[in-house]
Amino acid sequence: MAEAKHRVVIIGGGFGGLYAAQRLGNAPNVQVTLIDRRNFHLFQPLLYQVATGGLSPANIAAPLRSVLKRQRNTQVLMGEVVDIDLANRKVKLRDQAEVPYDYLIVAAGASHAYFGHPEWEKLAPGLKTIEDATEIRARVLSAFERAERTDDVQERQRLLTFVIVGGGPTGVELAGAVSELAHHTLRKDFRNIDPTTARVLLIEGQSRVLSTYHEKLSAKAKRSLEEMGVEVWLNTMVTAIEPYGVTIQREGKQEVIPTATVLWGAGVQASPLAKLLAQACGAETDRAGRIMVQEDLTLPGYPEVYVIGDMVHLKMPDGKLVPGVAPAAMQMGSYAAADILDKIAGRLRRGPFRYWDKGSMATIGRASAVMEAGPIRLSGLIAWLAWLFVHILFLIRFENRILVMWQWFVNYVTRGRSARLITGEHPEVAVLQAATKPSGFQA
Amino acid sequence: MAEAKHRVVIIGGGFGGLYAAQRLGNAPNVQVTLIDRRNFHLFQPLLYQVATGGLSPANIAAPLRSVLKRQRNTQVLMGEVVDIDLANRKVKLRDQAEVPYDYLIVAAGASHAYFGHPEWEKLAPGLKTIEDATEIRARVLSAFERAERTDDVQERQRLLTFVIVGGGPTGVELAGAVSELAHHTLRKDFRNIDPTTARVLLIEGQSRVLSTYHEKLSAKAKRSLEEMGVEVWLNTMVTAIEPYGVTIQREGKQEVIPTATVLWGAGVQASPLAKLLAQACGAETDRAGRIMVQEDLTLPGYPEVYVIGDMVHLKMPDGKLVPGVAPAAMQMGSYAAADILDKIAGRLRRGPFRYWDKGSMATIGRASAVMEAGPIRLSGLIAWLAWLFVHILFLIRFENRILVMWQWFVNYVTRGRSARLITGEHPEVAVLQAATKPSGFQA
Repeated sequence: MAEAKHRVVIIGGGFGGLYAAQRLGNAPNVQVTLIDRRNFHLFQPLLYQVATGGLSPANIAAPLRSVLKRQRNTQVLMGEVVDIDLANRKVKLRDQAEVPYDYLIVAAGASHAYFGHPEWEKLAPGLKTIEDATEIRARVLSAFERAERTDDVQERQRLLTFVIVGGGPTGVELAGAVSELAHHTLRKDFRNIDPTTARVLLIEGQSRVLSTYHEKLSAKAKRSLEEMGVEVWLNTMVTAIEPYGVTIQREGKQEVIPTATVLWGAGVQASPLAKLLAQACGAETDRAGRIMVQEDLTLPGYPEVYVIGDMVHLKMPDGKLVPGVAPAAMQMGSYAAADILDKIAGRLRRGPFRYWDKGSMATIGRASAVMEAGPIRLSGLIAWLAWLFVHILFLIRFENRILVMWQWFVNYVTRGRSARLITGEHPEVAVLQAATKPSGFQA
Repeated sequence: MAEAKHRVVIIGGGFGGLYAAQRLGNAPNVQVTLIDRRNFHLFQPLLYQVATGGLSPANIAAPLRSVLKRQRNTQVLMGEVVDIDLANRKVKLRDQAEVPYDYLIVAAGASHAYFGHPEWEKLAPGLKTIEDATEIRARVLSAFERAERTDDVQERQRLLTFVIVGGGPTGVELAGAVSELAHHTLRKDFRNIDPTTARVLLIEGQSRVLSTYHEKLSAKAKRSLEEMGVEVWLNTMVTAIEPYGVTIQREGKQEVIPTATVLWGAGVQASPLAKLLAQACGAETDRAGRIMVQEDLTLPGYPEVYVIGDMVHLKMPDGKLVPGVAPAAMQMGSYAAADILDKIAGRLRRGPFRYWDKGSMATIGRASAVMEAGPIRLSGLIAWLAWLFVHILFLIRFENRILVMWQWFVNYVTRGRSARLITGEHPEVAVLQAATKPSGFQA
């Protein structure tokens, strides 16, 4: 007797959604549909390597269909979710299609936040997608190309100034990688300019970088960055971003930094689906647009709907928030999948979701990283090796893991970045880099 | 006593320009400037692999600065040439800059020709640039994605029909690769559609494919394609390309083929610089816009200006044209460089340029190719191994040759195409693939 299968729909093929799908892959009485706007899963922790020419997009992206090919109970749909009808249990896509569900896992992630300055987005790209990464790559490389071409000393200095806003993991990684690019990879590539004279500025509003880590590690990270040639400006706020440059405020004074390349690593904003769900079920959202779910990750009144990953605001017993990192998303995905299987089987409910903090790590540059796990704090080469090991371990899920390791090895030995291509259409680049100093500016 | 250096300017970093630059690299009394719109040299023969997800753009592109890094007498400029002032010996760039020269080598290449139908370009992308390749990749993959999503049987069939126009090397390669993608790589990726039911049509106006090869090889290539599942339609003209489909004419009858994906491999057009130079010096151009140069590759009246590569119309002693292939461009580049060094040294003029035809080869698909060199004609696996060997040999100039070989090996063993990502903004894709049948069409 064939029982009707339970339809589980998952929105988003990031770490949370993919883990949930894989956890449900062997369940015989379940039919899984994974919906994503893109046709690939992206290994976001290495996106900064694409942005700085170290890796190719395909090295850190795996086609979702390929990853889930052997799960015969799982279907992948490429589409954009625009609405969720909680009452009728239907997901609505951009092209009018409707996907009904018995259980729903929403794992739609987050994008950049510009703190009420949406106009900054075009001037200072963030790093969330493949297109962001190739855009940043084109901007950084084009700045060097244009610097080589100009005879104007001031303009050359402006083009060789790179400002990274935000001292979190993304900002630190980008600052380290851009500095390496200038000081090593491109060192002998030009004839009119000396790339090693490029300035890389990391601007952070708080009193330290990597503020979620222990103070000692923040200090070590700052020192490592400085040794790599990055200027780290703490307690500094960005008050304006314009084509000609960035205006900052520190120690009560305004200052204009002429630059053609501003990269954004300062803030994230949950997917709009979080707000949409919150309004539909009466839950609250926080300042970053993340939805406050119940302790079992479901929506109040809708035990069949789970929200997971960095679009969720969830307090741990110690009052801290579950961080918006890949391990948390994966744990939430596994939890939601297991909880659904429990409900289907009529088993007793499992306890609330508990985040198991295995520690966190951030890379700074070649052979330099910080990590902490409970009382253990490491920095330097050993932390970097640990970082490398963990990331390669996760990449093993990918088809092209060996390629990535090989590419890394080659990069490490040669300090090369063979993927430093300027591709795509980037009208903004020309505008930014040709920007002349407006009369109102005092540089 | 320091002599003034002779300024050699090279326009274009393709096979011709790059070879000329490398040939001039060790000349002490020469100063070389290579100008290109892009910051990389592209290994065009493998572009079809990027278009079908087998390789990443960075696998077949090498940063020009990186390739020429060790040539201290050589400078690379990223810029677009808009005019050449023959009288005053100056090259003018898009951004107003002027680059003076003593000797000039123009190697600006060719792009697609749509035979008086420029409106087809958006509907049927050709394959000349990295962006073309990722555009084609996105279109082909998106067609499968949309086919998986639709319930309309006719529309599904339309989405699973791929039309390649032109039976030259590019069209043959594309047809073979798209067929492999459908019949092998994607075979188990979908749940609602069977990718192996996809139709791949290769449309050729003449009576055989690969018409520059011997008739026997054309016949073999056609048979190989058919064994791979490609329908080869000879003596067939494309008379219209519209969002809903392609209209063809064969045996006097018009027929509409409903399709969402048309790829263009039918014709090339020389860089506009050819016409510009022809008008300035009184030379003629042919139908494809190629300039007729003198037998030493210089312009009449301007012995210091060389034009090389596939923007040139040059007859061999036997009356045939020098073909627009990479080996010819490289030989022309070497010849022009050597001739310039001769002139500088005051040596006797060398004879006219002679093309040494080492033979030609075209790949059809996995383990299938054709090649001919003089009286030797090969096809099948042995031709494919020869093709692989020659292409790997040339790739050795590239930094990332080992990666490419590895990726190929992995693809060959697994039939995988891990780079099958849909990236970038492709508004056209949605338009094409959502195109509804216009009332005037009879499909």
